Amino acid sequence: MAQANDALSRIQEYRAQIDAIDKEIVGLLNARTEHSLAIRALKPDARMGLYDPRREEEIFERVYRFNEGPLYNDNLREIYKGILKVMKEMPSL
Amino acid sequence: MAQANDALSRIQEYRAQIDAIDKEIVGLLNARTEHSLAIRALKPDARMGLYDPRREEEIFERVYRFNEGPLYNDNLREIYKGILKVMKEMPSL
Repeated sequence: MAQANDALSRIQEYRAQIDAIDKEIVGLLNARTEHSLAIRALKPDARMGLYDPRREEEIFERVYRFNEGPLYNDNLREIYKGILKVMKEMPSL
Repeated sequence: MAQANDALSRIQEYRAQIDAIDKEIVGLLNARTEHSLAIRALKPDARMGLYDPRREEEIFERVYRFNEGPLYNDNLREIYKGILKVMKEMPSL
């Protein structure tokens, strides 16, 4: 019982840390979206097409270089595919 | 032409900022994964089941509360579904 309570309170501490991390992630995703929408608005002036598959591969490659684990590169690819999909589907500001 | 160069250099600045954000996000996702695996290891001692759908809803609700836009809550839900799916599928350390 003491062991169960101890495990539970450690779980609660870890969850509080995860909540703090999620707050940071949400702020960063929103900042990323703002920059991404700003880029989209500049592309016609820069004579660039809206979709650039090379830039997407570049993002994945950079994410892998930043990766120090425990996530595998494939895990980050899966998460980032979701992030990039959402950004592409965002309406322009 | 000057306008195109100006737009291009602003795009490059925004992309550099996005790369810096991605570095932070990758670090936070890895830290989140470490905490999540630590929680998983503690659950049997805490007499908790491995999967807790209420905790998942709690994460979504908290993420919405943190959200100051421009992302919509549904966008964050989609991204977080990907994050939580990857964490659930991670092998234990």
